[in-house]
Amino acid sequence: MKLIIGNKNYSSWSLRGWLAAKQSGLNFEEWTVPLYGDDWEAMKGAKGEFRPSAGKVPVLWDGDTVVWDSLAIMEYLGDKVGRDRFWPKSDDARGMARAMVAEMHSSYMSLRRNCPMNIRAEARVELAEETKADIVRILGLWAEARARFGKGGPFLFGTFSAADIFYAPVVSRFLTYGIGVPGFAETYMQSVWEHDWMQHWVDAARAEEWTISQFEVGQEA
Amino acid sequence: MKLIIGNKNYSSWSLRGWLAAKQSGLNFEEWTVPLYGDDWEAMKGAKGEFRPSAGKVPVLWDGDTVVWDSLAIMEYLGDKVGRDRFWPKSDDARGMARAMVAEMHSSYMSLRRNCPMNIRAEARVELAEETKADIVRILGLWAEARARFGKGGPFLFGTFSAADIFYAPVVSRFLTYGIGVPGFAETYMQSVWEHDWMQHWVDAARAEEWTISQFEVGQEA
Repeated sequence: MKLIIGNKNYSSWSLRGWLAAKQSGLNFEEWTVPLYGDDWEAMKGAKGEFRPSAGKVPVLWDGDTVVWDSLAIMEYLGDKVGRDRFWPKSDDARGMARAMVAEMHSSYMSLRRNCPMNIRAEARVELAEETKADIVRILGLWAEARARFGKGGPFLFGTFSAADIFYAPVVSRFLTYGIGVPGFAETYMQSVWEHDWMQHWVDAARAEEWTISQFEVGQEA
Repeated sequence: MKLIIGNKNYSSWSLRGWLAAKQSGLNFEEWTVPLYGDDWEAMKGAKGEFRPSAGKVPVLWDGDTVVWDSLAIMEYLGDKVGRDRFWPKSDDARGMARAMVAEMHSSYMSLRRNCPMNIRAEARVELAEETKADIVRILGLWAEARARFGKGGPFLFGTFSAADIFYAPVVSRFLTYGIGVPGFAETYMQSVWEHDWMQHWVDAARAEEWTISQFEVGQEA
């Protein structure tokens, strides 16, 4: 399998796809296409031209199968290795985890625009009211997941799973933008940040030379 | 199980959740909360207050389990009744179906804003360039799915499945907004429109008395 991703420093959806690939335990080859570079423009193709992946990252190639979109990649890998590697076993925990992940996938536009992932930065920005509402919503979900289902470990549903994979870029944003959070969330974020795979990604992001001066949101899914 | 939905005429994400519930074959009770009515405002709660469902529809209640978001509802039901009821069996078809559904879940903002679902209307609107790009993209995906995987029936992947459930509101929009489409897409859209469940939903939408003068997008997921 081959996983096509964008810059590790900026591409939050690539991080999700990559963590999902790691979580699957399967072997995969990484192929990085720096966002907005020449290869990126080539991948996007001419305007209006049909591309299987819509010119976005991440994309998983598995033989002749092309899976674009981070959530689809995670589900496709779950189909291969078994759902339990990604999702809690009990119905109530899994129902909540599925809803949290789906909400991350379609929502928080203000947070995503206002605080785009930038692992190398220590940025301080003016937070829009809608961004604050996104942050409150996310902290509420984290609190509920941790309180109800987090007994078995330091992650949202105990052990590292789909929900942590999908909120990992949010952890990065909260840290690098210096968003103040309650103690339970600080502890949770630290567990994500110190996770081996996350550390590996962060180190690689810091080593990248590619810098985007005007970061344009919306090229990933 | 109880499925909370919005108005059948307007709520495209409710239609997806409802079709998923039908497809599961399980019994469920419907509870309609008209969008922007008093019950809707009550469901949304005070600003900033934490609500499990984020004050959006559809929501599935299964005992103590609350699953908000149409895609999460479909996956949760698939966990209960088996994946094959919703997704193609072969890896390549399922990979594409999963990616198409995920793309519908996170994308096509311009189409969604420009042409909100309104089953009773025969509306004609000026299409923004981005809306036209969304339409071209969707028609490209439909064409590829039908050509590669549509041999076994009139739907995107042959028999009625997750991809049809997610694109059903798009079929409604293309029809009521009079979007010109190629012949293969006309045939496909007719199959969706004439599906028993769709006809049931359309009849109910036409019988609804609730009308929203200024339809506000973004209250569903």
